[in-house]
Amino acid sequence: MVDILHRVAVRSASPDGVYAALTTLDGLAGWWTQDTTGDVAPGGVIRFRFETANGPDGFDMLVKEAVPGQRVLWEVVDGPAEWIGTHVGFDLAQSDGWTEVLFRHLGWAEPVEFMHHCSTKWAVFLMSLKELVETGAGRPAPRDVKIDNWN
Amino acid sequence: MVDILHRVAVRSASPDGVYAALTTLDGLAGWWTQDTTGDVAPGGVIRFRFETANGPDGFDMLVKEAVPGQRVLWEVVDGPAEWIGTHVGFDLAQSDGWTEVLFRHLGWAEPVEFMHHCSTKWAVFLMSLKELVETGAGRPAPRDVKIDNWN
Repeated sequence: MVDILHRVAVRSASPDGVYAALTTLDGLAGWWTQDTTGDVAPGGVIRFRFETANGPDGFDMLVKEAVPGQRVLWEVVDGPAEWIGTHVGFDLAQSDGWTEVLFRHLGWAEPVEFMHHCSTKWAVFLMSLKELVETGAGRPAPRDVKIDNWN
Repeated sequence: MVDILHRVAVRSASPDGVYAALTTLDGLAGWWTQDTTGDVAPGGVIRFRFETANGPDGFDMLVKEAVPGQRVLWEVVDGPAEWIGTHVGFDLAQSDGWTEVLFRHLGWAEPVEFMHHCSTKWAVFLMSLKELVETGAGRPAPRDVKIDNWN
């Protein structure tokens, strides 16, 4: 098993802004993809959709944990084959006016080329999350930063 | 052992621009850090330096492989303890007007929090490499994109 790991920090003395961006439809639509629907409560499934060159694509995430100000964990229940059964987690911590975010996309079966792409793309989306909380505007799909010929 | 993996692609029908950005002092100074010195030939050591809140910091890379248009591999011979002995590689491929870059920072002993930081920071620097080759101007340190409270 191989994992994608990232760390960003948001200039925010309270974790509430980051937590809201991870646990509300408006928040998620503000940094990952504008087409976000579903049930954000623990046990619910959130549907993230993207327009691609090959038509609509996306991920369905089962909310496994949502601990206010501390931790969010999803299990991928539908999406690309490589993603199904993997887990996506965000752990929050406070430090001197910052909200630190440790991001983990855990449990890839193999370090395929698509995983390399997703690693860079997660970094770009986490920078979008940071921008959203710091400035009020992120760069969600379809206005997301393009990293390669797979977008 | 755990690894950092990334993928970017540069709009460039030839790999020469990306390869030059990885194997010349001017190129490296254009996307990673302006303070780049040393010997870029295979067997040489390249010194990358950064100004940090705690004074100058950096990495010394032994050039293990440099295959024009295809592959660059470094071994970290000095720098933060977690980096020493790890390998940093760039594999290039051409596809329909793009130069694809598979990036790997291989051989971390443990998935420490610093590795999460470095993963995101590599993504930002690879986007700087892409920007350098596509537009002529990257975002090397000290003008690099800041990702967290460790910079």
